[in-house]
Amino acid sequence: LNEPIVFYRTESGEPVALWGLCPHRLAPLDLGQLKGDSLRCGYHGFTFSPEGACIDIPVAKTRPELCRRLKKYPLVEMGPWIWIWMGDSEAPDYSKLPNIDDIGLGNNATGWRVDVTERIFLKARAQLLIDNLFDLSHIAFIHANSFPPGTNDIALVKPFMKKMENVFRVGRWVRGVPFVPGAMHSLMLPDATGKADLLLHTDFYNVGFVNGSGPWMWRSNDDGSQGEELAKLNFVHCITPETEHTTHYFGVLTRNIRLNDDAFSKELMQQSDFIRGEDRAMLEEIESRGAVYGDPTKEVSVFSDAGAMRIRQMIQAMFKTEARGEKKEPREATISVVEISEDTSSLNR
Amino acid sequence: LNEPIVFYRTESGEPVALWGLCPHRLAPLDLGQLKGDSLRCGYHGFTFSPEGACIDIPVAKTRPELCRRLKKYPLVEMGPWIWIWMGDSEAPDYSKLPNIDDIGLGNNATGWRVDVTERIFLKARAQLLIDNLFDLSHIAFIHANSFPPGTNDIALVKPFMKKMENVFRVGRWVRGVPFVPGAMHSLMLPDATGKADLLLHTDFYNVGFVNGSGPWMWRSNDDGSQGEELAKLNFVHCITPETEHTTHYFGVLTRNIRLNDDAFSKELMQQSDFIRGEDRAMLEEIESRGAVYGDPTKEVSVFSDAGAMRIRQMIQAMFKTEARGEKKEPREATISVVEISEDTSSLNR
Amino acid sequence: LNEPIVFYRTESGEPVALWGLCPHRLAPLDLGQLKGDSLRCGYHGFTFSPEGACIDIPVAKTRPELCRRLKKYPLVEMGPWIWIWMGDSEAPDYSKLPNIDDIGLGNNATGWRVDVTERIFLKARAQLLIDNLFDLSHIAFIHANSFPPGTNDIALVKPFMKKMENVFRVGRWVRGVPFVPGAMHSLMLPDATGKADLLLHTDFYNVGFVNGSGPWMWRSNDDGSQGEELAKLNFVHCITPETEHTTHYFGVLTRNIRLNDDAFSKELMQQSDFIRGEDRAMLEEIESRGAVYGDPTKEVSVFSDAGAMRIRQMIQAMFKTEARGEKKEPREATISVVEISEDTSSLNR
Repeated sequence: LNEPIVFYRTESGEPVALWGLCPHRLAPLDLGQLKGDSLRCGYHGFTFSPEGACIDIPVAKTRPELCRRLKKYPLVEMGPWIWIWMGDSEAPDYSKLPNIDDIGLGNNATGWRVDVTERIFLKARAQLLIDNLFDLSHIAFIHANSFPPGTNDIALVKPFMKKMENVFRVGRWVRGVPFVPGAMHSLMLPDATGKADLLLHTDFYNVGFVNGSGPWMWRSNDDGSQGEELAKLNFVHCITPETEHTTHYFGVLTRNIRLNDDAFSKELMQQSDFIRGEDRAMLEEIESRGAVYGDPTKEVSVFSDAGAMRIRQMIQAMFKTEARGEKKEPREATISVVEISEDTSSLNR
Repeated sequence: LNEPIVFYRTESGEPVALWGLCPHRLAPLDLGQLKGDSLRCGYHGFTFSPEGACIDIPVAKTRPELCRRLKKYPLVEMGPWIWIWMGDSEAPDYSKLPNIDDIGLGNNATGWRVDVTERIFLKARAQLLIDNLFDLSHIAFIHANSFPPGTNDIALVKPFMKKMENVFRVGRWVRGVPFVPGAMHSLMLPDATGKADLLLHTDFYNVGFVNGSGPWMWRSNDDGSQGEELAKLNFVHCITPETEHTTHYFGVLTRNIRLNDDAFSKELMQQSDFIRGEDRAMLEEIESRGAVYGDPTKEVSVFSDAGAMRIRQMIQAMFKTEARGEKKEPREATISVVEISEDTSSLNR
Repeated sequence: LNEPIVFYRTESGEPVALWGLCPHRLAPLDLGQLKGDSLRCGYHGFTFSPEGACIDIPVAKTRPELCRRLKKYPLVEMGPWIWIWMGDSEAPDYSKLPNIDDIGLGNNATGWRVDVTERIFLKARAQLLIDNLFDLSHIAFIHANSFPPGTNDIALVKPFMKKMENVFRVGRWVRGVPFVPGAMHSLMLPDATGKADLLLHTDFYNVGFVNGSGPWMWRSNDDGSQGEELAKLNFVHCITPETEHTTHYFGVLTRNIRLNDDAFSKELMQQSDFIRGEDRAMLEEIESRGAVYGDPTKEVSVFSDAGAMRIRQMIQAMFKTEARGEKKEPREATISVVEISEDTSSLNR
């Protein structure tokens, strides 16, 4: 969010995030050194406590507290990630943290395997990545040859949208798919027989956190009814805007089957890195050419964009709420002009 | 011209040029795939006909025609190049195409050898290249050691200017030059004896097309009169502005002698690439330093610049005509202030 | 100072500095060739005398003097450097040249060894380098492990400031330091015994010239009085702003001991290059991040900054004087807000 932040851990392992520049001569504090739980600037030795207070100025031993404090950012460590509160440091709203126990990432999650994938520094705005994740029809094109057979067909099934308690869901159901060698769901459960109902969906938790199933599956009974849960696989996306045009893109895989199968983890992580690399290439080209020469406000949208459009509207609404709180003009979000009305009534709700 | 364009060929070989961004999510279409004669976007599969019409949206099978059309650019393929009409697509003015049969490049040209040289992506504005080509006195300096002996002397001969039917010509005549080993014209015709009249000239066809002779030659009779044509060699320059500061620079060599001599072609092409590389280095330094720290409106010009100045005035006049048509302020062309009046009366005509 | 300048030497060795672009087509003249004492443009051969007069235009033999002259910059060569006058070329004020005989760099200096160190192209504004040199407390942090033992302690001694005839001095005295193996002053005089009084100081000669002692030392008598001079070592810094964000940083070492000890020179130069590299890394990070995200006008300053602050004020005063002369608004210098009043009464003088 265009703020320089330095992160470190205290000796007991507590994560700390402070404004990243020394108030003295603006040296970036990540070039400094840790002294116990404190952080010493690498230029002239100004030293700061984990609270952001200046506690030592080597050349002015008396009253270091007269030096301006560093802003301290409230943090919460949860699963493989640290969550940062970028608003008023005095009033972090922890209720905004998503409940992600049920995808294996909360501190109370059990029975899950969690694998952290390669971190991507994306040279594209965060909105392009969010758009990407909520229109999975792109799987059939960008990733045409990258997923197991059958995935593409699922990606072109007409999606549903559903507002749930914690998330806004865009998903696709494919029911009664037989376990045949090589198919996506067969790769997950090689010994399974019969048929499965598959749910391929993307859940919007908040503007920086999205989960995509990879997929979830249930036994498909002979009478067509849905049986017991067989497996859940998740491609989780943490999206941290760095500037208007760059994004830190973190990824994690979670699953509730084959927990100790390291080879399977490795295979999934390689697949994830490859696929995210394909998306990255496209998004960076859109950022550097499409968004330069094109006009995002005149985009054409179709019914498969309904989910992404709804997400854009939600983000726009958040901007407006934020602006009201700060009594200023809202940031302008990129909202497409919908040109294809057929099948898109939901877009204008 | 600051427009993103995608080029491809249909299965029957017809060249196609369309606006280069998908109207859906601005993905550059050159990242797409050809499907028969159509072009499919690599992101979500929107597919366009060679006419620019959207003919398939995989996730919205009905009424793809509701999607905005891509602008289609009229093209003409002629010799080794494709010519594009950047104006109103509905009203291309084919009469503006140059007649280049007589330099071996029209579709009716016969008796010519055509060799395409290395394509250069020039990090300099097109005007700098045009200036370069119309003041060949630079040959004696930038290319001091790159041309065969005698070329430099010719380059410093006082040039003439001539408005002809199709072109505006800046040229130099050198008459009665003996065929001696190593001289430029002797290299072209190693077995020739006697003397030749040489014409070294640059022809301005239009703002994107310039031909430089390399040289043309006629037998020089003993009585000083000009005899039959011996040879024509051309260094042809196609100049396509990409942005205000970058240019696609295409080159072709044509000649009407030694048509099947591949070794001679190779030698000429190597020479051409080397020389154009020397120009490129200078022009990019002028773009990045001269045009940044200097003031192009205060350039000093001398009589050898008369040709280049006339060309600048012609381009400026075209800008004005275009602006009148579009009822807007003309673009500002760089017109030198002429400070040396001697021998330069033609500059102010 | 944002002006393109070409430097060369005449055949007799006189240095010449001229405006660096050809008035004809803006070609950078450093791409040209020397012809005797004159400089010929590499593009079309316009040739200029050391006075900046155009003396030959190969394609317009008559009256080259009609071409605009190049601005000629007055130069003075002194020791290892050439000093350039960037103001009115007609009225250079040589009285502004510093007297640097006594640090071995004037043309009358004798008894000194002078070693030129690596030239640095610093991607940071000059002010950051000046700040650096006048707050040597940074030695204890950036260079914590780069100087001989004991140096850090000296760097944290409270500094004094002194306005002298030629320079403004910020320095630190440490008296009665025994010659023990490995200490900074012992390395300079390996055979010395007893004790020394050390002076570590930085002298501001003018905005582009700073000398830092490394150190100077005198015998420390048993009664505590200061004895004869033992040695002077200088790290001299020549600081030439290229643009608002880049600086040419030249360095020289001078000493009045062990004049013929080449191995000692080599050792000192390696140390100097290493230390200046450490500073460079920090200053470039401050330029690219600190000065982008931070607010230089809200810097916190402490008593060890008093010297640097005084220097900033002197530079600001020079800007104002210059602006009065040119009857325009003064450039805005970066002046810190002093937030720590204790021990900093001198900051507000």
